[in-house]
Amino acid sequence: MISLNAEALTELPSRKRATLINNLCGLRSANLIATRGVAATNLAIFNSVIHLGSDPAIIGIVFRPLTAERHTYDNIKEFKSFTVNAVSESIVAKAHQTSAKYPETVSEFEAVGLTPLYREETHIPFVAESPIQLLCSYSQEHLLENGCVLLTAGIESVYIEQSAIDTDMFVDHSKAHTMAIGGLDAYYRVTLEGRYAYAKVDEDPKLI
Amino acid sequence: MISLNAEALTELPSRKRATLINNLCGLRSANLIATRGVAATNLAIFNSVIHLGSDPAIIGIVFRPLTAERHTYDNIKEFKSFTVNAVSESIVAKAHQTSAKYPETVSEFEAVGLTPLYREETHIPFVAESPIQLLCSYSQEHLLENGCVLLTAGIESVYIEQSAIDTDMFVDHSKAHTMAIGGLDAYYRVTLEGRYAYAKVDEDPKLI
Repeated sequence: MISLNAEALTELPSRKRATLINNLCGLRSANLIATRGVAATNLAIFNSVIHLGSDPAIIGIVFRPLTAERHTYDNIKEFKSFTVNAVSESIVAKAHQTSAKYPETVSEFEAVGLTPLYREETHIPFVAESPIQLLCSYSQEHLLENGCVLLTAGIESVYIEQSAIDTDMFVDHSKAHTMAIGGLDAYYRVTLEGRYAYAKVDEDPKLI
Repeated sequence: MISLNAEALTELPSRKRATLINNLCGLRSANLIATRGVAATNLAIFNSVIHLGSDPAIIGIVFRPLTAERHTYDNIKEFKSFTVNAVSESIVAKAHQTSAKYPETVSEFEAVGLTPLYREETHIPFVAESPIQLLCSYSQEHLLENGCVLLTAGIESVYIEQSAIDTDMFVDHSKAHTMAIGGLDAYYRVTLEGRYAYAKVDEDPKLI
């Protein structure tokens, strides 16, 4: 095994260090967040959308320190609503391209070639190509010690490709072809190995 | 597409609702957290370990409301240090089994058959079978609106299987055979599709 103590971590060149640390916690979610801006709709890829609770249904998004321009954050604060759209295999290159620094007046939908889908309930577009689409509304935010912000939001409505969900309401990310992210730039396909039954002290683990 | 608005979500039976909501944000990390307890070492699977920053190196763990017994949380508060160990394909059944409600006097290492690995720098064991092992130290905590707690911690040292890391310090989770989690009970194998170059406005997305 390779081992790095605190001193060795500090001495790494900053780029290698960031690549290493960014990948240590395992796989991350891959989502496109769409917001309405003053000048144009905005679309941006995030690897930091997390589940926080199911009753009420709450998600979190970690934003890096707000010292740089953060269009998505500003738009959520201004308009409160936004959509979260799963990144699937067929749109991964376009989804990654939304991370380029387009000016505020350019809609990343047009710039990268994804389709805004408008539904009656909101003026925020969904990503038509995405297999899992959520409408969310701003709830709270929490400032973390390194300047990052954890923004929390409620889930207002949900749209899922029929083929990706079973009668139990289990969403199979293999069937949705959802990607996972490693660090900032690595994309992984996923294959369901199985679901395990609720674990009990006196029973061996078993697949459902 | 299947669509569920806020009312339809509320009307779902609670188990189906939890299964659905838990899987909406995409893939999650799979880690075993080892702690020292007063009575025994503790080992527990978590799907809520997240990267928060690389300089300083900070991770977060989301704990559900502290109304139930939370051995891992209590042990971290008491002893400050803990280890985070990636769940790989070969240990996934044992890792899942740590979620059974073993009493505080039982070490899940023994109960499920994983090997505690002691290193000189700490009295907290690592999981010998894990390809990515981190020693972490408690930093802060943040109470969220639904009673969940985001605990933050610094990364003190890192151990990685040689075959899973390249000269760039990129950890390839395909090579580490790290699993991803969907919801609470679904485990996915991951396959690296590729790493994308830093996206630029006037260039097409390209793989590194």
